Amino acid sequence: MNQTYEQCQAYMKDLSALSGAMGLLGWDQETMMPKKATEARSEQISALAGVLHERATAKQLGDWLHELRANSSELSADEQPCVREWLRDYEKSVKIPPELAKELAKTTSLSQHAWAEARKKSDFAAFAPWLKKVVDLKRQQADALGYEGVRYDALLDNYEPRMTVKELDPIIEGVRQGLVPIVAAIHESKKKITNVLITKKYPEAQQEKLCREVVVAMGLDGDMSRMDRSTHPFCGGTHATDVRITTRFSEKWLPAALYGAIHEAGHGLYEQGVDPKYYGTPLAESISLGIHESQSRLWENLVGRSEPFSRYLFPKLKKYFPSVVRSANAQKFYEAINTVKPSFIRVEADEVTYNLHVVLRYEIERALIGGDIQVKELPGVWNDKMQTYFGIRPKKDADGVMQDVHWSAGLFGYFPTYLLGNLYAAQWWEKIQKKIPDLNQQIAKGKFLVLREWLRENIHRHGRRYSASELVERVTGKSLTAEPFLAYLHAKYGNLYGIKL
Amino acid sequence: MNQTYEQCQAYMKDLSALSGAMGLLGWDQETMMPKKATEARSEQISALAGVLHERATAKQLGDWLHELRANSSELSADEQPCVREWLRDYEKSVKIPPELAKELAKTTSLSQHAWAEARKKSDFAAFAPWLKKVVDLKRQQADALGYEGVRYDALLDNYEPRMTVKELDPIIEGVRQGLVPIVAAIHESKKKITNVLITKKYPEAQQEKLCREVVVAMGLDGDMSRMDRSTHPFCGGTHATDVRITTRFSEKWLPAALYGAIHEAGHGLYEQGVDPKYYGTPLAESISLGIHESQSRLWENLVGRSEPFSRYLFPKLKKYFPSVVRSANAQKFYEAINTVKPSFIRVEADEVTYNLHVVLRYEIERALIGGDIQVKELPGVWNDKMQTYFGIRPKKDADGVMQDVHWSAGLFGYFPTYLLGNLYAAQWWEKIQKKIPDLNQQIAKGKFLVLREWLRENIHRHGRRYSASELVERVTGKSLTAEPFLAYLHAKYGNLYGIKL
Repeated sequence: MNQTYEQCQAYMKDLSALSGAMGLLGWDQETMMPKKATEARSEQISALAGVLHERATAKQLGDWLHELRANSSELSADEQPCVREWLRDYEKSVKIPPELAKELAKTTSLSQHAWAEARKKSDFAAFAPWLKKVVDLKRQQADALGYEGVRYDALLDNYEPRMTVKELDPIIEGVRQGLVPIVAAIHESKKKITNVLITKKYPEAQQEKLCREVVVAMGLDGDMSRMDRSTHPFCGGTHATDVRITTRFSEKWLPAALYGAIHEAGHGLYEQGVDPKYYGTPLAESISLGIHESQSRLWENLVGRSEPFSRYLFPKLKKYFPSVVRSANAQKFYEAINTVKPSFIRVEADEVTYNLHVVLRYEIERALIGGDIQVKELPGVWNDKMQTYFGIRPKKDADGVMQDVHWSAGLFGYFPTYLLGNLYAAQWWEKIQKKIPDLNQQIAKGKFLVLREWLRENIHRHGRRYSASELVERVTGKSLTAEPFLAYLHAKYGNLYGIKL
Repeated sequence: MNQTYEQCQAYMKDLSALSGAMGLLGWDQETMMPKKATEARSEQISALAGVLHERATAKQLGDWLHELRANSSELSADEQPCVREWLRDYEKSVKIPPELAKELAKTTSLSQHAWAEARKKSDFAAFAPWLKKVVDLKRQQADALGYEGVRYDALLDNYEPRMTVKELDPIIEGVRQGLVPIVAAIHESKKKITNVLITKKYPEAQQEKLCREVVVAMGLDGDMSRMDRSTHPFCGGTHATDVRITTRFSEKWLPAALYGAIHEAGHGLYEQGVDPKYYGTPLAESISLGIHESQSRLWENLVGRSEPFSRYLFPKLKKYFPSVVRSANAQKFYEAINTVKPSFIRVEADEVTYNLHVVLRYEIERALIGGDIQVKELPGVWNDKMQTYFGIRPKKDADGVMQDVHWSAGLFGYFPTYLLGNLYAAQWWEKIQKKIPDLNQQIAKGKFLVLREWLRENIHRHGRRYSASELVERVTGKSLTAEPFLAYLHAKYGNLYGIKL
């Protein structure tokens, strides 16, 4: 058994290294690559993807893994979860017929292009045939993967392994029922707060210095990471020792860069926080997109948009932008970064309404994959839901159903992980506040390392040893629910807007 | 035949794309990578090297290529040289036993480390056992590759395909015999010129602007390239549309950055100058390191250290460094960048003595691989040759036999390509001056595009269609000789130093 395990481990370590190379191709494309290299880069990515697929689905690998599973009682406590996760990935990979994989890659590439063009003209009819093709292929993919409950489960599992609609539906429903009255109460509140402070002109070079200072304070190891610029912020890289975050700068919208950097650094801390002895194995990989997002959101919102964080940050704003913030204070900044207002665009939404955007997308994509609504009905369904949940109605589809790239790219099942990230984060937070009683004082002083260590110890270092639900249970003593998140919003926004929630 | 060719071409295009990915791993390591990622990067490079080797030596590829060669009369004029070059590469690759390849990779990696450590203490005895191991393995590699003349031929062929000692020896001998009297005459000349001007303090940020302006003027396409910093300047990248040059900055040694950038941009123009319709085939690859170096050296020396180039450049120096060059002029700059003085370190040598450094290394490594001298004799042999050729003797081996990384890395056969580059360059230059009669006026005006087009048309766009010797014959009407190079030195340095050469 030992020998088989070692062969398999070496093979998978190699595969992991090749995935790292792929990570570099992707990062470079968004940050460094000369613009005329687009075609060559797409060939490089496609060639390496072919190698990765070939190796991930090799018969030899399957033979090793089945042999190891058959003798799993002989494996150590570290080896067992590795074999379990390798086999899970392997079995998913081999279920997709190569022709379908190619067709999907090709169609989603063309479809994203069609979406970008149609979106410019807000022309949903031009995009609809492409979306229909993508939906058809994703249904085929779901059927190839198989599922126990509903077809959407198979797609959700690609991003949030082991999560099902049966578990997710009541959670999402709870979020929706909890959020709509909060949004309405804030809308009707007498107390108004304003974001004017963060729409003043903040010179870019100084913003960059601020971002670097904050991510270092968070504990992101600069010898194992770098920060660059890209159109859309992301966290990528090639390895736990080579984490690459990006942000973007908008001179008259301070949160773009600052909260972009904090968010991505939260992802980066998860990547860096795995146990070095497991590098190259599933025990040094992230559990799911939802758990990953719980780390970025925790830092961005629960830490970064908190009152003590504003007290930590405001002196830095005075240092970097003395004339801009001269007549403001920490409380004004706290209010400015927490104004709530219904809006059309998800990525620009505040901490509260953001989640309603996700609820809306989840409900729609779930029905679309389930066959309960058709592509042509999407704009109407979208706009009606916007009216019901937000009280506003998009004037054009570019600000509505066509705003996000996800569907054109075939990423059905991805959206809910954004919301799950907020829920996991709030549930961790509830626990953290009990475990670190002086957390608020620490944050106000810019001391983030105790928090980072807690996250490392309780979440990061486990890699994929536990499933997301096992981890939540293990860390918080209960299953995932929307309650901690809603309680957090009630307390915070009740106070900010002077209302009882 | 058509179908076999197409399969083979698609396969090789994929392989070429994977090589591009490897290029990115290498470039990034020297320019962007966080410092603690060293180990992970080496695993990524090793994993991808494994894939490349596996694919380059696949039996299926050999079958296709042998079939194509057997029916080469059915191939087009473009297909024939592709098959010829693919087969050449394939046959070289399969000749190396995998165990030897692994042993070489491992030993040269350790040996480079040993060299770096031993060099710090100038302790040749500590490095000698490693060098002996490397030499033994390189002899084994040469025997596996096979050769008609002498063993060194097999290694030389790795960098300068189809070149042999039989052809090279008389050329090198001619260079040596031509250079030694030039160096002596310059040493004894009454006229002295000085490099003081280029040792003043040139602020780094301004140097960078100057470098960027010059490489753009040379015609390097900024949409298909980028320029960064690294410890040692190089030209890398992933594709002709993604060429990446680097340079390094020294505030009190202007040539480091400027001539580093010009040199690497010369390489970059070759990479960018291939015919796009052949991307991914040998017809869009470089012929040899010598031919590659002929492009970098042509720009660095024949253009960049010329009198008309000084007239072009000096106004830019006045623009970027007004106070530094206030009391100088173009002629002073021309003299400063062309001072000749025997010195110990190859990479810091002037345009004349540089070549004697290479002659010395060639003679030694050829004897070492041939078994005519032993590793332990190296310091003595080196120092004696320095005395004979340069009239100076190193005080320590760190400034002598241990100065270059090449031997520890197993790069036997590489050094002569530096010299060949200068010879090819001078032979092109002789022709170019006839074909572009007003070249000097163009250079003085900073008009480099006619020159770039000539190089593109006559050299770059052929890729590997012709061998180096065929290309030289085709372009210049004669075989490679040292005469144009020596004639160039005689004219230029005779004039600069007021001596008859």
